[in-house]
Amino acid sequence: MANYNSVTEEIVEQIKKAISGKVYVGEEINVDFFHDEMPIYGEGRPELVVDVKSTEEVAKVVKICNDNLIPVVPRGAGTGLTGAGVAINSGVMLNMQTMNKILEYDEENMVVKVQPGVLLNDLAQDCLSKGYMYPPDPGEKFATLGGNVSTNAGGMRAVKYGTTRNYVRGMEVVLPNGEITYFGACVSKTSTGYSLKDLMIGSEGTLGIITELTLKIIPAPKETISLIVPYEKLDDCISTIPKLFKAYLNPQAIEFMEKEIVNLSELYIGKSTFPKTIEGIDIGAYLLITFDGENEDDLNDIIEQAAEVLLDAGAIDVLVADTPSKIKDAWAARSSFLEAIEAQTKLLDECDVVVPINKIAAYIKYVNEKGKDFDFEVKSFGHAGDGNLHIYACSNEMEKEEFLRQVEIFMNDIYKKAYEFGGQISGEHGIGFGKKRFLNIFEGDVNTELMRGIKKAFDPNLILNPDKVI
Amino acid sequence: MANYNSVTEEIVEQIKKAISGKVYVGEEINVDFFHDEMPIYGEGRPELVVDVKSTEEVAKVVKICNDNLIPVVPRGAGTGLTGAGVAINSGVMLNMQTMNKILEYDEENMVVKVQPGVLLNDLAQDCLSKGYMYPPDPGEKFATLGGNVSTNAGGMRAVKYGTTRNYVRGMEVVLPNGEITYFGACVSKTSTGYSLKDLMIGSEGTLGIITELTLKIIPAPKETISLIVPYEKLDDCISTIPKLFKAYLNPQAIEFMEKEIVNLSELYIGKSTFPKTIEGIDIGAYLLITFDGENEDDLNDIIEQAAEVLLDAGAIDVLVADTPSKIKDAWAARSSFLEAIEAQTKLLDECDVVVPINKIAAYIKYVNEKGKDFDFEVKSFGHAGDGNLHIYACSNEMEKEEFLRQVEIFMNDIYKKAYEFGGQISGEHGIGFGKKRFLNIFEGDVNTELMRGIKKAFDPNLILNPDKVI
Repeated sequence: MANYNSVTEEIVEQIKKAISGKVYVGEEINVDFFHDEMPIYGEGRPELVVDVKSTEEVAKVVKICNDNLIPVVPRGAGTGLTGAGVAINSGVMLNMQTMNKILEYDEENMVVKVQPGVLLNDLAQDCLSKGYMYPPDPGEKFATLGGNVSTNAGGMRAVKYGTTRNYVRGMEVVLPNGEITYFGACVSKTSTGYSLKDLMIGSEGTLGIITELTLKIIPAPKETISLIVPYEKLDDCISTIPKLFKAYLNPQAIEFMEKEIVNLSELYIGKSTFPKTIEGIDIGAYLLITFDGENEDDLNDIIEQAAEVLLDAGAIDVLVADTPSKIKDAWAARSSFLEAIEAQTKLLDECDVVVPINKIAAYIKYVNEKGKDFDFEVKSFGHAGDGNLHIYACSNEMEKEEFLRQVEIFMNDIYKKAYEFGGQISGEHGIGFGKKRFLNIFEGDVNTELMRGIKKAFDPNLILNPDKVI
Repeated sequence: MANYNSVTEEIVEQIKKAISGKVYVGEEINVDFFHDEMPIYGEGRPELVVDVKSTEEVAKVVKICNDNLIPVVPRGAGTGLTGAGVAINSGVMLNMQTMNKILEYDEENMVVKVQPGVLLNDLAQDCLSKGYMYPPDPGEKFATLGGNVSTNAGGMRAVKYGTTRNYVRGMEVVLPNGEITYFGACVSKTSTGYSLKDLMIGSEGTLGIITELTLKIIPAPKETISLIVPYEKLDDCISTIPKLFKAYLNPQAIEFMEKEIVNLSELYIGKSTFPKTIEGIDIGAYLLITFDGENEDDLNDIIEQAAEVLLDAGAIDVLVADTPSKIKDAWAARSSFLEAIEAQTKLLDECDVVVPINKIAAYIKYVNEKGKDFDFEVKSFGHAGDGNLHIYACSNEMEKEEFLRQVEIFMNDIYKKAYEFGGQISGEHGIGFGKKRFLNIFEGDVNTELMRGIKKAFDPNLILNPDKVI
């Protein structure tokens, strides 16, 4: 770890001169900036929060910090789940939410230029109003796009459309020494040296600060239908997935969920949509599937084929949501899982592991069994189409220290199992601070050292979001 | 540049002991190993060519070379177009063609494991025989997959299916110090630290040696139809493209070609498929389009809609190739462009620029105009759906020195124009040795220095494919 300096009054003055927006010092800083959505990883108090408004302002502030060995943490909407956007070494926090303009659509090249502080939800809505879709669809709609790119956010539609990585064409970046550069271009195909753009994607603000993004958009599918598919057992539910792919069906999203979490979430939102018993059979798990297509007839054909595969594979029923309001209802419980858990849990840690899709059932079974050895409760759900699972350790009764002790053992164990199955630590939330030690353990010293070498090539003074990722 | 050592007899003996395959020394080496498909970038004579057969053998040879400061060049099928696989600093060449096994299909996770020396054509055929498709489809079907990954090869179907990058899930890599490691996993979604896998893709053998690949496959589309679409003028031809996208049509491939190159290629293959005059109108350019779909009816609907858009946009006719043999004929001329040019040209250089698709027409016009200032002929064709253009400077009369002098001025000028239009140097062939100086000029010192820093983090002794890319 580098030895950092504190922000002196003189440096505050230099920064104030360099920018047009507000600067918050010490007590003026809102406590929301001290943590993200996973406070278990600890809090960090920046000495300064700076509302930046342009690339040039970012560059000036970063240069001042680099010259004075002061840590810089870029911060989006603070919706992260790994502590990546928390100033654990103090220093200067750049509030990127003040760079929130959708700059320009280029309809001929099917791209849109945005500032990094634009919220995912705002871009998604704006695209739809123009007949386009921005396909990445992480659960949290009020994250910034800069944050989405920095974690290679995945979300519901990754199974058909891929993750954020697949939609980033180019980016303007401020390097840790204050230099402004550009990675990539608005083209869809390139082999022009090492892909610095792909290195930035998922680097969680440790290599450079994204100040503009050129994102790919696609024509919005004309029709969408969702299916709620109840099963007696999770095993049958999960083992349906490869059968859907083999039948050449191409769902936009496939989520699996156990009944406990559906109950919890429906209680939280005060609305029940998922059937709990059908003809005397207790439902144990569900798939929630969305298909999209160009016309109603096509989609009806797809639904018919899908229903056949699903019922064959042991589904108890197939409930069709075919209007925007029914689709919204079907997804309402799923969209509130995290909030529902947060609202009802004092101590919370999570694992965002990704495993091969044919290993999901065995993995969840293992995790649920293993969970019984501990005093916390285990709740899980996930993206069945891509093997990305969200496993929560929750407790309202345990002492924090004991919770942390037990969770450490549990997480180590389930990460190990994920790697045995050919998986990795994080599908979409990233590493941040909370999972840094696991990255080293499970990706190994060789890969971690390569990452450290890359970090030093970009940021020799280690001022940018220090102690995150590696 | 580092100071490299020569391969002594002692080192030859060490290497012979380390491997089970053949070792070729000095005069025993086939001259084909001295160059790739673009000999204008100069030749290089390795001191040793080693037929490697396993990861462990690669690791042992690389370690010996690293310990002795001897350059190592991994070599696939030698079909590259930038000199990337040429031993310009001598040293040891690893012949990866001897690691050519398709190892294992995992149909539940829709991936296939291969050794890097498997030829694209062999994997493509093998997948089809099992009902799958490996979507990347570069013009050169007899390149190795290791080579494809090392250049992020694009090809015909990139417009619908993306480039090689989108199909690499994981890779085993031997690092320059001989350590064996693994990047990525067989999962489709990951955010587990910096994407070392994405850094390797397109790094042209300069960061590590790929010894195994896990590649994504998809269910093969059931039906395919190609269209030959003649136009009077190139401008109309190119300006059709955004209209096809806006009509929600989703072609598998869209190639544009000027009449001169079609004539040349048809002469070369001895078969004529493209119409030259229709109802008294001289045809100046063509689109060659392929659509795929799940059933004949769907596809017929698509063709009907496409024909309407195409004729509206100024196409003189739309010729349908709807059987495998007709489709093969339609693509025969396109597939032989490079061979046809090579066969009829003594001096040849090429530019593989990529520009935004709405700039293709203006760019080609500029290039053709600019070409008139020089003594060579300019021939061009390209991937209209993704803006990747192949521009050839050809001469049978010029002296080599004068050709090189003029080509340097021409290339500098047209690269400059590509960047003005928002493009980049290479869409799919890579940088290698031939385009290294242009990478530095047009991507700039800041990006080039970052790439150098990454190179040093992987390869501190600079032994791996030295003087390529950066």
